[in-house]
Amino acid sequence: MLAHGHHYRTVWMPEPGLVRIIDQRRLPWAFEIIDLKSVAEVAHAIRDMAVRGAGCIGATAGYGMALAAIEVQNDAELEALARSLIETRPTAVNLAWAVNRQLAALRNQPVAMWGSIAKREAEAVADEDAAACAQIGVHGLELIREIAAKKPGEVVNVLTHCNAGWLAFVDHGSATAPIYAAHDAGIKIHVWVDETRPRNQGARLTAWELAQHGVPHTVIADNTGGHLMQHGQVDLVITGADRVTRNGDVANKIGTYLKALAAQDNGVPFYVALPSSTFDWTITDGVKNIPIEQRGGEEVAWMEGTDASGALHNVRVVPAAAPLANFAFDVTPARLVTGLITERGVFPADEEALRAAFSDVSRASGPR
Amino acid sequence: MLAHGHHYRTVWMPEPGLVRIIDQRRLPWAFEIIDLKSVAEVAHAIRDMAVRGAGCIGATAGYGMALAAIEVQNDAELEALARSLIETRPTAVNLAWAVNRQLAALRNQPVAMWGSIAKREAEAVADEDAAACAQIGVHGLELIREIAAKKPGEVVNVLTHCNAGWLAFVDHGSATAPIYAAHDAGIKIHVWVDETRPRNQGARLTAWELAQHGVPHTVIADNTGGHLMQHGQVDLVITGADRVTRNGDVANKIGTYLKALAAQDNGVPFYVALPSSTFDWTITDGVKNIPIEQRGGEEVAWMEGTDASGALHNVRVVPAAAPLANFAFDVTPARLVTGLITERGVFPADEEALRAAFSDVSRASGPR
Repeated sequence: MLAHGHHYRTVWMPEPGLVRIIDQRRLPWAFEIIDLKSVAEVAHAIRDMAVRGAGCIGATAGYGMALAAIEVQNDAELEALARSLIETRPTAVNLAWAVNRQLAALRNQPVAMWGSIAKREAEAVADEDAAACAQIGVHGLELIREIAAKKPGEVVNVLTHCNAGWLAFVDHGSATAPIYAAHDAGIKIHVWVDETRPRNQGARLTAWELAQHGVPHTVIADNTGGHLMQHGQVDLVITGADRVTRNGDVANKIGTYLKALAAQDNGVPFYVALPSSTFDWTITDGVKNIPIEQRGGEEVAWMEGTDASGALHNVRVVPAAAPLANFAFDVTPARLVTGLITERGVFPADEEALRAAFSDVSRASGPR
Repeated sequence: MLAHGHHYRTVWMPEPGLVRIIDQRRLPWAFEIIDLKSVAEVAHAIRDMAVRGAGCIGATAGYGMALAAIEVQNDAELEALARSLIETRPTAVNLAWAVNRQLAALRNQPVAMWGSIAKREAEAVADEDAAACAQIGVHGLELIREIAAKKPGEVVNVLTHCNAGWLAFVDHGSATAPIYAAHDAGIKIHVWVDETRPRNQGARLTAWELAQHGVPHTVIADNTGGHLMQHGQVDLVITGADRVTRNGDVANKIGTYLKALAAQDNGVPFYVALPSSTFDWTITDGVKNIPIEQRGGEEVAWMEGTDASGALHNVRVVPAAAPLANFAFDVTPARLVTGLITERGVFPADEEALRAAFSDVSRASGPR
């Protein structure tokens, strides 16, 4: 998508041996591109969250393996580098999947060919991620068109939570793909952006990327969505997902469930956009069976921002001694989800429907 | 309640001509007492939110009139000072009510008596506020006792939103009164404190006052309550209220409605604690008829906190150009409210029940 007027992906390989990423740690205060020239640098970038988001991490790891393929000359060393990448974020399923895909592509191939094979495979991983998100946009656009048709001339108001934008993938994003598609199609669209405490991905990343692409938006405190829905100011909600069970329960950033409840209470459609790699076909009851990561309380206590002179500070916003808890995700039961927007179309959050649509992949363990 | 080991009210008059307040602008970073020696200083303290919260503002204005009564010698000047106090926060109903109560008490009294009459009246306003909150504690304690009896030996977990604590009143608070009463009665109680964006009254004030009184608590992002309720970690919710309609719709800090929805979805009792002065007997449909204040977006954009060296900074936490919206309150429909904890007892959020319990005041326009 657009950043400073140019089209970017979150990660790319301008030439063999060089990976470039947008440094997401610095957004929105600064837009900086980093060169990564070794597997160690890629691993550090992933671990330190210079890149984040399932699709983006997977693609970056894929490119990392393209560097690995020219750094070493034998299987044992290649596998050691692969492990070093996988271990950066052990729970990110796309990461291990992309690395293992590279290992499979290189196995039994002449070492002289590794570099070109792995670069091609990395491009394929990135292109497939971008293509899946583009298709989510195509299908989600139809939903927005239907709503726009019911209020001709008026603005369609979408509420989103966290960042399921292009910064979390390679391009387009999941929740944002229908929004960008609608905006580009000339539909008048406006996005309510939940700031998304405690890590503020909405205020920092979603607001930034919508602004860069010229999509009208307003940042709100996470407490606000219910009031807006009570007053007819939200036409639909679209969020992303971190994991979706085979019956359609949605694990996503903490607070998603509260918005889904408000949507149901006010008759507002609540959609979740995801590439099918996000389905976990092994789990049925999301509330009971999806483990919810507890992160450090310092993410609640400390906030980064710029003072009036533009200087960056990290400040503690709760009393020094206050005990803190930081649950990263919650689970929205399928009964609250109007539909799942995937690269294959829009489906009800329902086991039968999902099994029928994804029968070819719903028995496999890895993404796609 | 306790602060630094001593019992304090939010506002008091240690001697004629001197009003003392806790400067709430500086909490939790510093605990400072300010001397106010003139009506102008009291007006400035209210306008600048050194004191805030309906009960606390009302009592402070009452004491302000006790200063007025010794500053001037005739009705016209007294009324001018009264107006200067009322105009500090024109929407706070307790403020105008306390000032007008003082004017009524002084009318037709000899000027030589004004000082002592007004001081006595100011003490009465403050004492009545503290007594009402204490009674809320007595009635709310019974609810907590019932829950504690069902899980002997275990901790009772309460979730609260914003600051309806003693800092918002003269003493005890509304939502916190049952919590302090339970803690003081030896019931094991723990409070989930919503940080309450955008102004962070939960993280800054509620967490501070609970810590000062030794009540176990944990600060959480506002997004967290639904997840906690899904997992049985909340036994009851108690919030305060800014205005309650005669049928029991509750206007309170933005985000209250989302917690009420989650409470209903998980079978968690949702109580609202309020002195009866908070009822607005003229309104029936809260969602339609309670005007919701929109405040400046800078409250969402900027946050105050201390850096690692303890220095205070105000930092911008959203991109510089991001459009912002800041709705201060939302309305929780009566159907989501388990009960209203008042100084007269606990009542259902229901017009018939409320009219029966408050028949003597439900036709009057002012508080109490």
